[in-house]
Amino acid sequence: MNAARPPVVVVAPDSFKGSLDAPAVCAAIARGLRRVWPDADIRARPMADGGEGTLDAVLAAVGSAGHRRSQIVAGAGGAPIAAAWGLLDDAAGPIAVIEVAQVVGITDAAGMRALAGARSTRGVGELMRASLDAGLRRFLIGLGGSSTNDGGAGMLAALGLGLADTDGTPVAPVPDALAVVARVDAAGLDPRLAQSSITIMSDVNNPLCGERGATAIFGPQKGVGRGDLARYDAALQHFATLAERAVGRSAATHPGAGAAGGLGFALQLVGGKFRSGAEVVADLIGLDAALAGADWAITGEGRSDAQTLLRKAPFVVAERARAAGVPITLLSGAVASDALEELGRTFAGCFALPSGPMSLDDCIAQADALLADRAGEIARVVSAARGG
Amino acid sequence: MNAARPPVVVVAPDSFKGSLDAPAVCAAIARGLRRVWPDADIRARPMADGGEGTLDAVLAAVGSAGHRRSQIVAGAGGAPIAAAWGLLDDAAGPIAVIEVAQVVGITDAAGMRALAGARSTRGVGELMRASLDAGLRRFLIGLGGSSTNDGGAGMLAALGLGLADTDGTPVAPVPDALAVVARVDAAGLDPRLAQSSITIMSDVNNPLCGERGATAIFGPQKGVGRGDLARYDAALQHFATLAERAVGRSAATHPGAGAAGGLGFALQLVGGKFRSGAEVVADLIGLDAALAGADWAITGEGRSDAQTLLRKAPFVVAERARAAGVPITLLSGAVASDALEELGRTFAGCFALPSGPMSLDDCIAQADALLADRAGEIARVVSAARGG
Repeated sequence: MNAARPPVVVVAPDSFKGSLDAPAVCAAIARGLRRVWPDADIRARPMADGGEGTLDAVLAAVGSAGHRRSQIVAGAGGAPIAAAWGLLDDAAGPIAVIEVAQVVGITDAAGMRALAGARSTRGVGELMRASLDAGLRRFLIGLGGSSTNDGGAGMLAALGLGLADTDGTPVAPVPDALAVVARVDAAGLDPRLAQSSITIMSDVNNPLCGERGATAIFGPQKGVGRGDLARYDAALQHFATLAERAVGRSAATHPGAGAAGGLGFALQLVGGKFRSGAEVVADLIGLDAALAGADWAITGEGRSDAQTLLRKAPFVVAERARAAGVPITLLSGAVASDALEELGRTFAGCFALPSGPMSLDDCIAQADALLADRAGEIARVVSAARGG
Repeated sequence: MNAARPPVVVVAPDSFKGSLDAPAVCAAIARGLRRVWPDADIRARPMADGGEGTLDAVLAAVGSAGHRRSQIVAGAGGAPIAAAWGLLDDAAGPIAVIEVAQVVGITDAAGMRALAGARSTRGVGELMRASLDAGLRRFLIGLGGSSTNDGGAGMLAALGLGLADTDGTPVAPVPDALAVVARVDAAGLDPRLAQSSITIMSDVNNPLCGERGATAIFGPQKGVGRGDLARYDAALQHFATLAERAVGRSAATHPGAGAAGGLGFALQLVGGKFRSGAEVVADLIGLDAALAGADWAITGEGRSDAQTLLRKAPFVVAERARAAGVPITLLSGAVASDALEELGRTFAGCFALPSGPMSLDDCIAQADALLADRAGEIARVVSAARGG
């Protein structure tokens, strides 16, 4: 590189799902780069897309400005869990970072033992209320990895929305009960929400209901039986119509309303605004500042294909790198051959992990070593091309 | 690269054994490079190591100075075959290029149907004699890929060496008969051999006999039964002692005497000199001239590991590239992780074919497309690093 100083390399990968989290991916890549550039200024900026891993990535990147907190709230199945969240110091006021997967995630075994019709996002609302009690008015909420399909009714109930049947008896905010809701009362809704800024991070564009809705598209992977899909979809529509009328705002047909089993609907109903998770994270972790003056950048993800170009984390990093005039190489577990030409317009080289024929299991098990090896080899090419 | 002119790239891979020959590897890599550098001056120089593929690589590289010829000779099992060989025009006199695998190769099904004890290199001697008859006095003979273990007795017999038992009855030059040879007569050996230059291409250093000899090391893969190894080894030693005495020259203990089932011994007995096959091929194909002024080079082979550094074709290409000041990248089917550090001292990046987890069979079946893809990605890194 420039002989006058060691190279500056920004390392900003997403997690390799099922294998390594983003900070671990950064560490492996950095190790490989140092084999070729022992004195390199390696700026590790673990990325995330607003889904699982967002909290860890943000906390790892902001350093002492971030604080990991824990709050006892209801898990998806109702049993109390200690949910991690993040408190970020910021000049414009502290920010609560909430990752829905940490509260009602499909990784929560206890929550998953409850039937899909009984799972609720109540814990998300409890966590928001606790944050409001602590004086917080800025929220970054990552959807993705949720196990729930309650239209966000649980979250809204925890924040004061009243649900009752025709007799006025309170109704539990779970999918199986929503069809009997007859009255929704917004009078008790926490007034501090109106003073808050709620940024919703998600790349899901689906509406709440219908054939592209939350239940039809994501219900099956959350355990909703084929025979129950139409019933739950109708229950969400029924609840949403009443809730929109009570709050005086529409949201069910907005893009993203179907994210996280309809939590995207409920958060918009209380004023939340969608933003690309990767864009929010890139800002939070100071990606642009890291790229300023850098010689090269490396990003990656578990698997790259044409979807990557739909503003997934590596694509967002690449756009920022391009704006900063920094070449960026993609290093992923696998790179779909049929997307290589398109990816090549964005990335200065796309490489996969395997060192030869190997199974997916071996690739996952050896990901740390393979990442370091491949990163080192990319550095060798760059170094030689620049006369190093 | 240099903005003033299109990049000059030398592509000089070995064959990917079991998948693509070296010219096909060159074509695939060139296709990938052109995606990034449409106007590149791509100098394809298919390499070989003196073994299988040498004839094709040499003929592909020398263009109109090379002529493919065919000669009917005895195959390993005795049945006549049309053996391909090459005639090269050269200022210092025409050269016969003989690839032993084309005459008595393990790829010859008819030859392999004969028992190991009955297979002979007679056809190699017949091909040499025909070349001598045509006025040729310069031979390049690639060992490697042979199915024989006759100590080169067949080749010598075809060129006039007499073998007889105690009664003076002629003995067939096959492993099963060598033990009964009692007299070897060199009087009839073709006198034109003494006026010839015979270059033997092989990377095998084994002596003819003993625990590191041809039979012990290579016999089993040629179908010599475990129980026959000692007997055949003794027969070769017996024949070699008589032959050395008759010719008045020793060779059995020389490095390489055990190459091609002892053909390395027999060729040395008639004045042949060993030289690294890859070095000979590099000279023949004009590799140094191709590298002069080049911007980058790519080499490769089916699988790279620590053995690659023992002067295999990619290593020889890398040495020539280093001397010419040209960075060279290794692109192989697989690259052994435990050799990566050592390979990294020689190569500007080592990359494997897979685009993600895949089986060896898939990797072989898709080698052409994978090679083009990986070569293109390497070009993208080089291009970006040079400000392209």
